[in-house]
Amino acid sequence: MSEQFAVPRSVEWEETSIKILNQQKLPGKTEYLHLTTKEDIYDAIKTLKVRGAPAIGITAAFGLALCAQSIDTADVSEFLSKVRQIKDELNGARPTAVNLSWALERLVKSAEGAKSVNEAKTDLVHEAIQIQIEDEETCRQIGQNALQLFKSGDNIMTICNAGSIATSRYGTALAPFYLAKTKDLHLHIYACETRPVLQGARLTAWELMQGGIDVTLITDSMAAHTMKEKNISAVIVGADRIARNGDTANKIGTYGLAILAKAFQIPFFIAAPLSTFDPSISTGDAIPIEERDPDEVRQIAGAQIAPKEVPVFNPAFDVTPHHLISGIITEKGIITDRFEAEIAALFSVPRPDAPAKALY
Amino acid sequence: MSEQFAVPRSVEWEETSIKILNQQKLPGKTEYLHLTTKEDIYDAIKTLKVRGAPAIGITAAFGLALCAQSIDTADVSEFLSKVRQIKDELNGARPTAVNLSWALERLVKSAEGAKSVNEAKTDLVHEAIQIQIEDEETCRQIGQNALQLFKSGDNIMTICNAGSIATSRYGTALAPFYLAKTKDLHLHIYACETRPVLQGARLTAWELMQGGIDVTLITDSMAAHTMKEKNISAVIVGADRIARNGDTANKIGTYGLAILAKAFQIPFFIAAPLSTFDPSISTGDAIPIEERDPDEVRQIAGAQIAPKEVPVFNPAFDVTPHHLISGIITEKGIITDRFEAEIAALFSVPRPDAPAKALY
Repeated sequence: MSEQFAVPRSVEWEETSIKILNQQKLPGKTEYLHLTTKEDIYDAIKTLKVRGAPAIGITAAFGLALCAQSIDTADVSEFLSKVRQIKDELNGARPTAVNLSWALERLVKSAEGAKSVNEAKTDLVHEAIQIQIEDEETCRQIGQNALQLFKSGDNIMTICNAGSIATSRYGTALAPFYLAKTKDLHLHIYACETRPVLQGARLTAWELMQGGIDVTLITDSMAAHTMKEKNISAVIVGADRIARNGDTANKIGTYGLAILAKAFQIPFFIAAPLSTFDPSISTGDAIPIEERDPDEVRQIAGAQIAPKEVPVFNPAFDVTPHHLISGIITEKGIITDRFEAEIAALFSVPRPDAPAKALY
Repeated sequence: MSEQFAVPRSVEWEETSIKILNQQKLPGKTEYLHLTTKEDIYDAIKTLKVRGAPAIGITAAFGLALCAQSIDTADVSEFLSKVRQIKDELNGARPTAVNLSWALERLVKSAEGAKSVNEAKTDLVHEAIQIQIEDEETCRQIGQNALQLFKSGDNIMTICNAGSIATSRYGTALAPFYLAKTKDLHLHIYACETRPVLQGARLTAWELMQGGIDVTLITDSMAAHTMKEKNISAVIVGADRIARNGDTANKIGTYGLAILAKAFQIPFFIAAPLSTFDPSISTGDAIPIEERDPDEVRQIAGAQIAPKEVPVFNPAFDVTPHHLISGIITEKGIITDRFEAEIAALFSVPRPDAPAKALY
């Protein structure tokens, strides 16, 4: 499959450095950084130069593999002990990011069977690259599975940035748009700006423009009028966490879009890898909703847009109940009904490395 | 009725000048300007230092009355000719603002029967003050009529600024909150920030805080989650234009709120004076929706928050169909059903100066 289009990448392995897109500077400036030290990598994760759970995990994995190259010992056990020390330091950059600790843990494990320090160093690099490849393949599969839902000429709405720059490549909710481009399907995207942090305006609009995909930016408040006037045929968004019954936590604003979509009889899709499902949670009611700094609402880009002391309610996420969701698109297929049973089935596959099986 | 509370006023007559609240500087700075020349008045209207249809009309009327004082002639007909010239100049400050031309026209007419220039000068001042008094009374009546819909402890959501500073005093959608304060009814307001121009964050939050009313600011994207989590008992908003069947054009985002309110079974009210009804329009489909500068979406407070060249859809208003509206609160009472018949009845009252008759 030849894919000749420019999907921006957030992180790349460069042997002696890690190249990352500085997402802090978007959309004003497209700046790539070349990280070479542990401090560089820690800072890039800590200060959100790199963001999106998969992209953070990959950056940390590359970071650990890179830092390990300069550990100066011939003793495997001493080497691994130093690797674990770096792992713990990088882990502190964003303590609550699950993908970060997961990727670092997986990396350390990959080197534990090594018979020499050189072998261990190679193992780390290979495993980090493997994490990136797997994530790219997962995203591509999600895009592939989603593509069947759209036809050329469709107008599709999204919120936040579940895009290429949040993952290894392609993204989740944005993946079908890149794949459509390779097949000459023309899709037009309406991106909600996504207050308060404006990931739609700053990142999704930029990323889709880079990829040569038709995108129109709207404020979140324009969603209903746009659905009515612009013949929107579907809404597709990412997910932060999905409960066993299909209830989905995602960026604040998602729940409102789902209610509007229902009112306009527009299908509403979630695009997310299996790693986003949390089998320990039975319904969305059990998902804790983080409340963030009120100044995210009171200020924009440093400008005071509301009274300094005005009380603010600033939930970062909301939960869309499964009855508003037309389908959840995963790398293994699309769940469109009987969420509870189908999600359970996905997680009871005996061999997780078995070939992908489309559910529909 | 004693009303001891601080409702900010947007415009006041000061004999030799006109005092206006500079809304351009809010919420960062509470600045009052004293306008003394035609150029001051033109500029204040043109550059949105004063905003809100009634407040613009009142400022222009005061402005014309003030400028007329220094017309140096004893000939009534020459005087009126010069007054009309000033009227035309002020009218150009915002050519599409209906209240502006309406107020100026009414003022000129009031002086047409004068027998001397001094009498004409007095007529102009009296008529301008009369316009302000009538608007304040209209707003107070709307607030009074709305108040019966709420009980102490209610959480109420609004969007944009249909407030005191957009009118003579009290506002329309915000009027019941000021009146509730005088009766020791405690209402808590959730104000949507109202992108793109942020009237909710900049003006409503500020105005309600000045009035000592409990207000919490949210982004527009948080409306659904807030309705679910914060026990919202009603939504109340203003209106820009109301068709004969009750369909209502208002600030972009209103339509979405109405759909969400319906989904949560929360009553949704419009508060508007009779002057907002347009009997020439049968349904909302006939209301033209202005599209504004894309940079209102791409930039906030001068900061570039989206790619410079990204296509933008920026409708300033949307139309809420009457079937989503629980009631329209006017100075003459609340229309809650059979909108078409009740609106027709409102406009067929034989004597427009007859005592107000509550419809319900």
